[in-house]
Amino acid sequence: MKINEPNLQVRVRRLPEGIPREDDLEVVAAAVPEPKAGEILCRTIYLAVDPYVRSRLSGRHFDGTPKVGSVMIGRTVSEVLESKNPRHKPGDLVCVESGMQAYAAVGPEDVLPVDPTVAPLSTALGVLGMPGLTAWSGLCVLDPIRAGETILISAASGAVGATAGQIARIKGARAIGLAGSAEKCAWATEHAGFAACFNYKERDWSGRLARLCPEGVDVYFDNAGGEVLNTIVRSHLAQGARILICGLISQYNLKDPPPGPNLGPIVSKRAKIMGLVVYDFEDRRDDFLRDAIPWFQAGRLHYKEEISEGLAQAPRVFRRLMSGENFGKTIIKVGAHARAP
Amino acid sequence: MKINEPNLQVRVRRLPEGIPREDDLEVVAAAVPEPKAGEILCRTIYLAVDPYVRSRLSGRHFDGTPKVGSVMIGRTVSEVLESKNPRHKPGDLVCVESGMQAYAAVGPEDVLPVDPTVAPLSTALGVLGMPGLTAWSGLCVLDPIRAGETILISAASGAVGATAGQIARIKGARAIGLAGSAEKCAWATEHAGFAACFNYKERDWSGRLARLCPEGVDVYFDNAGGEVLNTIVRSHLAQGARILICGLISQYNLKDPPPGPNLGPIVSKRAKIMGLVVYDFEDRRDDFLRDAIPWFQAGRLHYKEEISEGLAQAPRVFRRLMSGENFGKTIIKVGAHARAP
Repeated sequence: MKINEPNLQVRVRRLPEGIPREDDLEVVAAAVPEPKAGEILCRTIYLAVDPYVRSRLSGRHFDGTPKVGSVMIGRTVSEVLESKNPRHKPGDLVCVESGMQAYAAVGPEDVLPVDPTVAPLSTALGVLGMPGLTAWSGLCVLDPIRAGETILISAASGAVGATAGQIARIKGARAIGLAGSAEKCAWATEHAGFAACFNYKERDWSGRLARLCPEGVDVYFDNAGGEVLNTIVRSHLAQGARILICGLISQYNLKDPPPGPNLGPIVSKRAKIMGLVVYDFEDRRDDFLRDAIPWFQAGRLHYKEEISEGLAQAPRVFRRLMSGENFGKTIIKVGAHARAP
Repeated sequence: MKINEPNLQVRVRRLPEGIPREDDLEVVAAAVPEPKAGEILCRTIYLAVDPYVRSRLSGRHFDGTPKVGSVMIGRTVSEVLESKNPRHKPGDLVCVESGMQAYAAVGPEDVLPVDPTVAPLSTALGVLGMPGLTAWSGLCVLDPIRAGETILISAASGAVGATAGQIARIKGARAIGLAGSAEKCAWATEHAGFAACFNYKERDWSGRLARLCPEGVDVYFDNAGGEVLNTIVRSHLAQGARILICGLISQYNLKDPPPGPNLGPIVSKRAKIMGLVVYDFEDRRDDFLRDAIPWFQAGRLHYKEEISEGLAQAPRVFRRLMSGENFGKTIIKVGAHARAP
């Protein structure tokens, strides 16, 4: 297929140390690939810029460390331009691991259909996509939340956290959030149904949480790790509390893995710590969507996005994300589409 | 009742800092108490000197910090001398929380009968007592061990560890031990059925464990905490591993609770950490004994004891225990009895 423009790609120029610098990445023009047998040629509409990418650049992801010069990994909503796979036809909308680029030839694995009639396209990268599946898997499968429980959620305005809070509320639990700015906290309580949200950068958040939950929290859904996690374990666990470790974003920029919480309170509180990895629940995606699409359409799953325009923004957007300056699901709009606002 | 000797008591002279010093405790002569209505007067035969006592002296036990001048807590096998409780009669043998003293008046709660015909009396403080119940609760109730699994157990020659290893083996699992001396390791493999036992004070124990268990261990039954726990979490977890935190003895001497393991591997290995507290399983003691007495009588539960003579030894024995110099269940023989060897 003849495309009249180069294929912009975001490549690893240098493996970052600490918070990524903009010049750790570079945006280059490459050739648009030819799809091979079984592949589809995709044009990127929306690209998700996700924190897990940072941990992968440190070699902590299951795929190993990417090479300098390789295209940055990234999940996109894309349009099928050309198909050598009978399951897809030109014009189809799909969610794919195509990497941070404008065009990609993608193999038959891991192509998820996106139905443009149920919700805005970009939600396939957020509340109805992998982040939504993460929150749902944790609270509906791995460790089901029960009515009447109190759940504390860090990164409460992020895609995973906000969805988790709203699912907990739908299940009859009380959700309390932690977030990194007054603006994020306000959004969490005003739009995402959190009963309260504390700014963990303020001095007395732990004392205020203790006054609100003197018996501790039944579940801590952790997207943060680090000192916030340590404080929760030390001071805020209810008897029999469960801790879902979903992300350790505070640690992704660090060279060496830092120590974790002292486990004394895990014993005295008879608590449980467990890891939550969304890939384990891929086979439950249809169940997730059967729950989540009606919730979404009924206005029960609010979300916040921060959409930048153009792949050239990727280095800046990634740095912003990994320094905590973003607010909401971080997405780059790469290409136009009739369904995209 | 007229007793022709003073009541020797081990009292707290000073709350210890770090490893207990012998002069943190003192042995004094007091009056033999008179039992009140509902109480029994007990004469101590065997006294257990347990690591949890140290954590209580730091205020980390559920009962709070004991006062200077108070009698040290301790569990004993005792003979009933006088009873103002219809459930017990003089001559009965009981296991009680009577504290470190020769005579005690004990209320109706927490008096457990000891059957002197099933096993040596001192086993009511070890393999058939609280340590045995701890091991059984962890591996038969809280997180049942499965045939074919590999379990790693720290403090493998201790009362809890050795019992846990043998129960795991009875259930068809492979038990691997960690202990603090070559002598302890040899006992664990030669007498307690461990497939292997590594001395964690030697330099390459982690490498040797990795060569024996290249896929990691399915269960880690932790009596140690500290750097050993960190190493296991970092390098030795199988996919879906469970970690039972039973004791953190390496930390009991520390003033401030140290950090715990980095939780990154808990996520990548989909592992679970849970606290094991024996008091939660008190209502299962009969079930435990129904399992354990036949195992014991069939020679399937070996144990190692270190028995000292006389309460005056308590300060020395406690220091030895908390510096890891003991080998086996640490017991003081306080009074004579026909059934005691």
